[in-house]
Order: sequence, then C-alpha cells, then structure tokens
Amino acid sequence: MPDFADKLRPSQPDGPTTLAREREQSSISTEELGKHLLSSDGFLERQARILPIVLREPLLAKDKQQNLSRPERFKLGLARAKLLRRLVDQHQWNHEDHKMAEYLVSDVSPYFLHLEMFVTTIREQANEAQRAHWMPLIESWKIVGAYAQTELGHGSNVRGLELEARWDPRTSEFVLHSPTLTASKWWNGSLGRIANHTIVVAQLLLPKAGSPDQFVSHGPHPFIVQVRDMDTHQPLDGVIVGDIGPKYGYITMDNAYMLFNNFRIPHSAMLSRYSSVDPKTGTYSKPAQPAVVYGSLTYVRAQIVHHARLVLARAVTVAVRYTAVRRQFTDRDSNGTGPEMSVLDYPTVQIRILPLLATTFALHYTGLAMRRVYENARQDVERGDFRSLAHMHSMSSGLKSLCTMLAADGIETCRRALGGHGFGGGSGLIELNNDYLSKPTVEGDNWMITQQVASYLIKKMTAAVEAPDTPGADETETRFKLYIQNRGGVSRQPGYRVLESDQEIAKAFELRATVLAYDAYEQRVVKKRSWNSLLVQLHKLSKAQSQSILVSKFFEALSTDINLSSSLKAILWDLYRLFALYTMENEGYDFFRCGAVSQSDLDTLPTRVQDLMAQIRPHAVKLVDSWMIPDYLLDSALGRYDGRVYEDLFNRAHRLNPLNQMTFNPNYWEQEIVKGSGDDGSDILSKL
Amino acid sequence: MPDFADKLRPSQPDGPTTLAREREQSSISTEELGKHLLSSDGFLERQARILPIVLREPLLAKDKQQNLSRPERFKLGLARAKLLRRLVDQHQWNHEDHKMAEYLVSDVSPYFLHLEMFVTTIREQANEAQRAHWMPLIESWKIVGAYAQTELGHGSNVRGLELEARWDPRTSEFVLHSPTLTASKWWNGSLGRIANHTIVVAQLLLPKAGSPDQFVSHGPHPFIVQVRDMDTHQPLDGVIVGDIGPKYGYITMDNAYMLFNNFRIPHSAMLSRYSSVDPKTGTYSKPAQPAVVYGSLTYVRAQIVHHARLVLARAVTVAVRYTAVRRQFTDRDSNGTGPEMSVLDYPTVQIRILPLLATTFALHYTGLAMRRVYENARQDVERGDFRSLAHMHSMSSGLKSLCTMLAADGIETCRRALGGHGFGGGSGLIELNNDYLSKPTVEGDNWMITQQVASYLIKKMTAAVEAPDTPGADETETRFKLYIQNRGGVSRQPGYRVLESDQEIAKAFELRATVLAYDAYEQRVVKKRSWNSLLVQLHKLSKAQSQSILVSKFFEALSTDINLSSSLKAILWDLYRLFALYTMENEGYDFFRCGAVSQSDLDTLPTRVQDLMAQIRPHAVKLVDSWMIPDYLLDSALGRYDGRVYEDLFNRAHRLNPLNQMTFNPNYWEQEIVKGSGDDGSDILSKL
Repeated sequence: MPDFADKLRPSQPDGPTTLAREREQSSISTEELGKHLLSSDGFLERQARILPIVLREPLLAKDKQQNLSRPERFKLGLARAKLLRRLVDQHQWNHEDHKMAEYLVSDVSPYFLHLEMFVTTIREQANEAQRAHWMPLIESWKIVGAYAQTELGHGSNVRGLELEARWDPRTSEFVLHSPTLTASKWWNGSLGRIANHTIVVAQLLLPKAGSPDQFVSHGPHPFIVQVRDMDTHQPLDGVIVGDIGPKYGYITMDNAYMLFNNFRIPHSAMLSRYSSVDPKTGTYSKPAQPAVVYGSLTYVRAQIVHHARLVLARAVTVAVRYTAVRRQFTDRDSNGTGPEMSVLDYPTVQIRILPLLATTFALHYTGLAMRRVYENARQDVERGDFRSLAHMHSMSSGLKSLCTMLAADGIETCRRALGGHGFGGGSGLIELNNDYLSKPTVEGDNWMITQQVASYLIKKMTAAVEAPDTPGADETETRFKLYIQNRGGVSRQPGYRVLESDQEIAKAFELRATVLAYDAYEQRVVKKRSWNSLLVQLHKLSKAQSQSILVSKFFEALSTDINLSSSLKAILWDLYRLFALYTMENEGYDFFRCGAVSQSDLDTLPTRVQDLMAQIRPHAVKLVDSWMIPDYLLDSALGRYDGRVYEDLFNRAHRLNPLNQMTFNPNYWEQEIVKGSGDDGSDILSKL
Repeated sequence: MPDFADKLRPSQPDGPTTLAREREQSSISTEELGKHLLSSDGFLERQARILPIVLREPLLAKDKQQNLSRPERFKLGLARAKLLRRLVDQHQWNHEDHKMAEYLVSDVSPYFLHLEMFVTTIREQANEAQRAHWMPLIESWKIVGAYAQTELGHGSNVRGLELEARWDPRTSEFVLHSPTLTASKWWNGSLGRIANHTIVVAQLLLPKAGSPDQFVSHGPHPFIVQVRDMDTHQPLDGVIVGDIGPKYGYITMDNAYMLFNNFRIPHSAMLSRYSSVDPKTGTYSKPAQPAVVYGSLTYVRAQIVHHARLVLARAVTVAVRYTAVRRQFTDRDSNGTGPEMSVLDYPTVQIRILPLLATTFALHYTGLAMRRVYENARQDVERGDFRSLAHMHSMSSGLKSLCTMLAADGIETCRRALGGHGFGGGSGLIELNNDYLSKPTVEGDNWMITQQVASYLIKKMTAAVEAPDTPGADETETRFKLYIQNRGGVSRQPGYRVLESDQEIAKAFELRATVLAYDAYEQRVVKKRSWNSLLVQLHKLSKAQSQSILVSKFFEALSTDINLSSSLKAILWDLYRLFALYTMENEGYDFFRCGAVSQSDLDTLPTRVQDLMAQIRPHAVKLVDSWMIPDYLLDSALGRYDGRVYEDLFNRAHRLNPLNQMTFNPNYWEQEIVKGSGDDGSDILSKL
C-alpha cells in the first residue's frame, strides 16, 4: 500500500555514497585477494555457479523466516532440504555443489547426519558385505540415516554410555536395551523426526567364557539399526524416539532422544570392519590398531577449524560495512562543527572489529595448514605409519578449541559493536550467532579437549629433558630440546624484538608456549601433581600453543613466495602484526613472565596496535569485500554490499513484518487480544 | 500415553541424592544469608506472597512457550500483561508487587514503557496543568503510552535527532514532520502495536527573530502526542507506526518505527515544566538548570546495576546445581576405578562458574551502594545542591558499563559450562541470555558511556595536580592528591601485600585506577592529545575505576559490623578474595606496570585463586540457594532445586514437545511434508 514513507530518503551522505568512497580510497584489488583466498579449491567458481540457481527458488527466500514458530521452521527446513536434493538430481551436482547450496541457504539440514556421520561411519566401520548392502540405499536416499552416540547422561565420556547391546547366542541376535532413563540417546541429529535408520553406539555385552549367564562389556561399538517403519514412519515396537524440543539455534534440526526396550537386531547389524563377534561361537575380535577410530573425529575438527574463517568473515563483513555507513557524533575536539563521524573511525569501535578482521586471515592460513597436516597424516596412516596421528590429534584439538572460541565470541563482539541495530533481525547476526554457539561444545568440549594438547606436549617435553642433545623427532621436540639446552644460561632474556621483527613476534609466541609446556612438565612429571589439579594450567598451555600455531602459520604463509602485489602484501603483513600484537597485549603478563617480551615493548603495544588499526582502516571495506560473501548468505540489512542499510531496515519493518497485519486491543479490562477477532485469549492458552 | 519410559529412572546417584549431599556438607544457613541479601526492602516477603498467585494462572505457565512464533508470543505477552494488571486490581497490589509478578513471569511487558518512561517523563517534565490532565488517564490505563526518542539514524547522539517540531504561530500549533527516512523513530518500546499515546522527542524549531520564514533549532524537546485512534486503534492520519520485527530477545515487546507527515499537535503537547514556548509570542524559555535532565537516565542506570546481580544469580544457580548433579569421567589418576566425578569438581569448570558466583555478591553490595549514592544525590538536588550530580553520573555510567558486561558475558559463560544440555530449551538460559543481551547497549552503549567516567576523572586529576596540598573536595580528589604528593618519591613501589591483606587488595585496585587516571590526564591535558585518539585508553580507565568500586564496596560491606555468623562471614570473605584476585589475575600486567602488585605475588595468583575455589566449592549449592530464586522463575530442568534434572529434560522432550505430534515424510522425491496432510509445502511457502 503506497504511503508517504515511499518518498522518503535517508539523510546524506547515505550508505551507497559512503561505501563508494570507502572503496575508492583503497588500492586493494578485491578480485586479487578474493582469488588468493578462495579459488584454490574451486570455491569461488562453485559459489558463482550455484548462487543463481538458489536465488530462483521462492522456497529459499529468507525474508520472513524469523517470524515462524519452531514447528513451522522445521517444516520449512525439511521442504528446503528436499528441494535441494531434487536440485542435485536436476543439475547433476556433486557433493561439494550440494554443500555449497546448503552453505548459501544456511539452514542446518535435517538430512545433515545422513550425509555426514551416517554415511562416513558405514564407509569406515562397515565390512565389505555390509557396505555392499547399505551404500546403494544410502546414496539413493531410499533410507535416511542418523548417528546416535551421545546419551542423556553421557556426552564427552563415550566409555560411560549406558545403552546395552547384549549378544543372545540362542538366536544369534543382539538385544538393545536402555536400563535407565539416562541411557536414552540424546542430541542425535536427523533422528528426532526424519531418519528411519541410524547408527547406534552401545556397550557390547558378551557372555563370560565359562559362565554364560554373566556378561562382560567390551566397550562401545557401532550398530546399524532400523528404528521406524518404512511405510508409516512410526517407531518400531520397542523403540521410543522423538525430537528433544526447542534449543539454541539448529531450529531446523531434529535432535533426538531414543530408548530401546529389549529390541532385537540381527548379527549383521554390528559394523564389523575392525571388531566383530563370531555368529557361531560368540567370540570377539578386537581391532588391530585402535587409533584408526581417531580418523573421523580429527577430520571433523579440522573441518571446523577451516570453516571458522568464513563464519567470522560473515560477522566482520556486516560489522565493517555497517560501522562505515553509520555516523554518530561529530569529533569532540571540533566543538560540534563538521559532519558526524563514521563510527568505524572511533578507536573504540576499531579495537573490537579490526583485530577480528585480522583474525579471519589468521584462521584462513591456519585452516589451510591444518588441512595439509590432516591429508599428510592420512596418507601416512594408509601406508601403515601411525606416528603422525598424535601430532595431528593434538593440533586439531587445540585449534578446534581456540578457533571456535575466537569465532563464537567474535560474532557476538561484532554484534554488540553494531549498537542498537545489532539486536534487530536485520543485523543478520542473530541466527548466525545462535547456530554457531554450538561449536565450542560439540565434537569435543573446548575446555575438555585441551587436555589432549597438554598431554601431548608434556610427553614431548619429557622426551626433550631425557635426551636434550639427540636430534628431535619433529619440530616441537627440536624446539623443546633447544630450550632445555639454553635454559641454564641467562636467567632472564631481554625479550624478542616484537616491534621490529615479524619473525621475532612468532618466536615470542613459541617461547611462551615452550615455557608453559616446561612448567606443566615440571608440575606433572617432576613434582607429581595430580592431573585434575593442573587442569586450568593445562588449558592455558593449550591456548598458548594454539595461539602460537595461528601466528606461525600466518607468518609462514606471508613469508613464502606468494604471488601477490606488493601493496596487498603490505596490508596482509599489517593484519598479521595486528592479530599477533593484539593477542599479545591481552595476555601481556604471560609474555613478560616468560621473558619473551620486554617491559618497554609491552608498554608500547597499545600504541602500536592503534597505529596498525589506523593503517588498516582505509582498506577495511575492501578487505571484507574480498571474502566474497553474497548478500543472500549475509541476509543482513546492515551488511549489504550496496550500503542501503536504512532502506532495507525500513522495508523489513514496514512491509515484511506480519505482526503489523494484526490490530491489538490495548484495554486491560477487556479479554480480547486481536481487535475484532472475538477471541478472548483462549486460542493462545490452548497452546500452552 | 503410558509407555515403557514411564518406569525408567536415572542412573545412580541421581540428582536429588546428589543435591541432598551437597546441602549436608555445608554449614551455611541459606535462611540467614538469604535474609541478609534480600530482606531489607521486603523483597523476600513480596516474592513469597506473589508467587502462589502467579502459579495459579494457567496463562502464566511457561512449559511450551518456546515453541511459539513471534506473533503468537506477542499475543501471549499481551494476554499475560493484561491479566497481571487485572490481578493488580483484584489483589490491590502496589507498583512493587506488580513488578515482582512481572519479574517472576519474566516476559518483557508490552506495557513496560507505559509504566516506566512514559509516566516518569510526564511526572518529571510536564507542568502542573499537564500533570493534572494526564496523570489520571495514565494511572487508570485509560490511555496507554510510550516513549519515542531514538530514531533509525540516531541512538546515542540525541542532539542529532532529525524529527522536527516546527512552531506555527498562525495556529499556535507544533507541526511534527520527518524530513528523511532516517528520521523515523525506531526501537521505541510499547509503541509498535500497543500504545495510543507517546512522548515524542523532536527538534524544537522556532521562527528566527526578525525573519519569521527562517527557523532555529533549540534542540530536542519532549511532546506528548496521541498517535492512534481510541476506538479503531488505527494510526491517525499523517502518522505511520508499526513494529520493527523479530529481534534478539524482547519477543513480547513491540519496539516501534514511526514517521510523521506534517502532523499538527496543540501548544499544550509540549511538556513545559522546564522549557516552554509562549503561545502568544513564540518566545522560548530555557531550563534554569540543564543538569536536571540527568536524573531519570541516572536512575535507570542505577536500577540496571542493582538488577544485574539477580540476573547473574539465575545463571549461576542453574550452573552450580547442574554441574554438581552432572557426572562425567572418573579421576584420571585413579585409572578408571571409582565413581564418575561431579563436573563441578573439575577446576576447569570451577574457574568458569565460581568467580561468577563471587561476582553476584560483588554486584549486590555495589548495587546497594549505588542506590545510596543515588538517593543522597537526589536529596541534594531537591535542596538545590547540584554538586554530587557529576560523581553520581560518572559512577552510574562506569558501573552500568562494567556490570552489564559482567552479567551478560557471565550468563553465556555459565551456559557453555553446562556442555551439551546448555543448548537445550531445558537450560533456562536461552531466553535469559537473549533478553539480557540488550543491556550492554541500551541506556548508553557500554563503550560510549565510559567517556563520561574518564572525563570526570581527568577533571578530578587536573584539580589534584593544580592544588595537590589543599584538602580534596571528595574521596576521589583526596586519593588523587595523595598520589600526586607521593609521586616523585619511589620510582617503583614494592606493591601491596594482596595475598595477606584484604584491605590491601582494595588499595591495589585503587592505585591502579589512580595511575590510569594520571596517565589519561597526562595525555589529554599535558600532551594535548586528541580525545578520540585516547578513547581506548579512556575505556580501560573507566573499567579499572569501576572494578575498583566493585572491590571497595564489597570490602566495605564485609568490614562494617554486619550481623552474620562468623562461619558465614568467613565464606563471604573468601568470595571477596576470589572476585578480586581472579579479576586481578586477568589483568595482571596492568597491576604490575602500575607498581600495585609485585611480580612474585602475581605469579602466585593462579594458585591462590584455585585454593579459594576449593574452599568455596563445598558451599556452592547452598550459596546459590541463598539467592532464593524460585523454580518457576528459573524455568530450568538443569537448575531445579530438587535436582530432578534428567526426569525433567525427558518430560519436556517426550511429553511436551509439539513437534512430536507430527509425522513427517522423509522421501525427498515426494513433495509432501507432514505425512497424510496432503500438503505439498505450499502452506509453508505462503508464509515466506
């Protein structure tokens, strides 16, 4: 309906004018930087190819989705996921294409577990006959599967799972049974309403040799189990399964609870590539190399590390563009004359956003390095060489913990930097925030898995102390040995020249991590302190080590002969310095105590950080442009490429908000809620 | 429907057993501590009186509300708010009783602005005749009002508001007009769908003396304006008004946008207690004392500071009870024997939760002190003495910034400490988090208002430097003068004995704040650095000053002769030490650089913090019990007083989740979404 708002324009200078100026003032080629970041694995080409197809589908429009209830959003999520799968058929998309479409739509698919953990587990843990049976059904989606490991009572501690799979030698079946309420499966994605099959992880119970009435647990093992009828989609007898209810984010995912009551499954249900039970004798065969099960967990963590950069880049893109467009207050020293300033020109806004902009690049180069480490280690394992597994596992654990923390906290920091409009649905950060907040917890809680890093480093340090003069088996051991050799020497080093040398910045981070590793070794190995009493210290060690990796990988990436224009390289070096020195400043005492940085350098850090931000500021908009995040994915009035912030906010409010189609009755003495509806509130009461 | 889940129980020891043991092992009297904290203003008595009334109303049940859409939640919020107002009539509740009921229900009321800023502004800014006309209408809710100040383009910078109120001398009316889109009012609570009247803040434009066609702005002024028809509830001609749409939290609040098109209001609309326009001559009268407008803003900030403790206490209550009940892993040094440990026994869980438990007490004593400062200052102002306003304004700004940051970040830290179940709707922290996240931004952005603290302290330091030997006008000046007098003396102090003396902990915080104030003075006044270049430093100064207030007020509260058992006092002192030393450790370098704490003491802090946590741990459950937060308010399966965590989680999932009443069709090649519905997805498409 036309009204007088149609003719109104925002005050000047408006968003498009401002962003055009921002882009003019920087010499960066976003094409050059975008290609450098995102073209090696075909990402940009794929995005350009898939996006127009996605944009054509009315069902994939995001405008009003935030107004829907959980059940409605779930229906929408399912309808969209089915549509995407039909588009796969229609356009002959491969798996990466399909994932790109899901990335752009940005709903968590109710088929997610079918496509990831379900098929991966069959591929990796099923024997050849099982794979031959199941893979065609899975690939055609004739069956839909999930992965049910965690329970109401046990998440991290897999060995503590309570669900039992008891071998019945008379019928050659396993009997799945939940002895307690806490044995209920819980959190298992795609299983609450959608899957008809699932991997079930249960304690394998076998009769004790000699006393067949007593059972011995051989630990958790995976089984493939049909849980719903293929026609009616109702749970089979002896199975209770459903969705756990509303939660933070993941609104389109049906995380499940599931209980079994003496539910019988055939011998063939146990995935038997590595472990098996002889159907005749009931004899158990163990896996030859238990470390193989590390594989998929490490893969998922490495993926999460690599993924973090694009998540944070989304938030930073919104924050940089909007704070450039947003103006508030004139310069206090100008006495009220002059135009209002872009809020991105205030150092108190810069200090929240620009280090995070630098962090996206640190995450990028580290993510690439993590992928290389993973691929090399996998090749080693295929050759039967398991030596690099421990390093890879430690690196992926520490980085998963640190990087998801940086990204999750970074999204919220960006959101708060947007001021009032940061709360609005138009920010584009609400659903991103809600969905991403699971990452610090899933696939290994961020506080728990740092023990794995510390444990690894203590082992390495012990080896270094025991034989300081022999060559180290790897980089870490070599560094530790060098430290042990020099330790007796100077009692306090002068500190690395972190203000003059980019390399010495990385050295300072390494030294700090090494000193913390030595402290941990001393407490645990020499003083024999209990493990639990050291947990906080070990967490700090893991963080220091992972920060050191982020800094080193960033440094190494820029130091190698990358083919970039010198002006672009100069800005990337400034981003490196900003990321590293900002991180250092926040934990200054640690660097001082370790002798890694001198007091006078530490005192200079705040000024240096501010100078670096001033250097980077003119390029900020073009730097975020280079992450090439389409408006459709951003779904943000504040972060639009064209800067039409206020027009979009107003449009969402005035033209798209369904609440404005209802007129309410504000008189408290009348029961009526919606004017003229005649409803006295009993409609809404019936939903409680 | 009965099923085999009905008979299942959680594994042992279950929640009730665990919490009973927790409560047995501590000698604290929760009654004694609860009374100490919450009885002085009748809070506990009021809670006990109102709660049973609220619990009787089916409309106030919270079980399923997380499943509703935004429009449904808004209807529910309105129905509830009307019901509460009817209960006010029925039970003759006073304003505090009404607020208690709202606190327990925990919806943000769509009438909130009517009850707060609307009535407050009329009371404070209207002249006597205006008050006589409007107050009866407001108090009877015959009219419903709101407060419209912020605009699409301007939030913090009130002077930059664009809406115009132009005086028309021919008709003796004001003409409200929005010249641009960014002049649209925005974020104004209770106005989007509910209010029929509102305070409107607009630039007062008066004809220039001598040239009546030119207008001069006299800055923003408040007007009272009817915007909707009293019968149809439709916007009046020349007004566009609606709800801005979904956002973070505040789901039951109708934040508004509003535009005016040459909309005429009478002379009497301008609230004229302090400023006025002569209806005959158009002459403007200024307020005699501009500082009076500070009053209500400072009051709101003081309220927010005091409120923060109960918000954080809710999150900490959930976190402590659940992490006591939750067990995961046996002690690593026990080699897998022994029971699984309560996760609250892991120092990595303690370090996230117990300092926040200590923070609730720091916030409490500081909130009380803030209230006293406010009340004394108000009495001064009533007597015509405006000297204490600046101190009060500085203190409330700095504390609002720090305390809302502590509470907002604290809720999320607690939530993450809950592991997987922290995401579930059963955590009780999702809506709390979403609703509270506005607080760091509203009523003065947390980063912006710290300038007011810094500006105040720089003035005080300048006074101290100019006359170091005369007596200080107040505590701050005296402290600063003492610092100036001693400054030339020792170049580096040995540091305060923070490990031995509770008082010296507070002294160390004071010294650090003083040194930062001196640094800021030196940069700004001596070196004449630009204000904007110092903003980050000034923010740190405000934070240091506010941390010092939190520590000092905690210390003073325990040092005065409070009537508590000695065992309870001992625990409160441990909480004081934990709060202060944990805060100190996180900013260790700052304390070192200022000479406030020695290096050897700083190196000991982590151990001391861990020891303090071990001391407090046995009392943790009873300490949170003492905040007396009813289960109904917590709305948390994890945080229930009785510890029946898993039973409640399962009940919410299996029996209360509406998604489980729908059966879905998982076959991607079929358009049908809900099985048997015949719907091909066009129903959901129609809502996009």
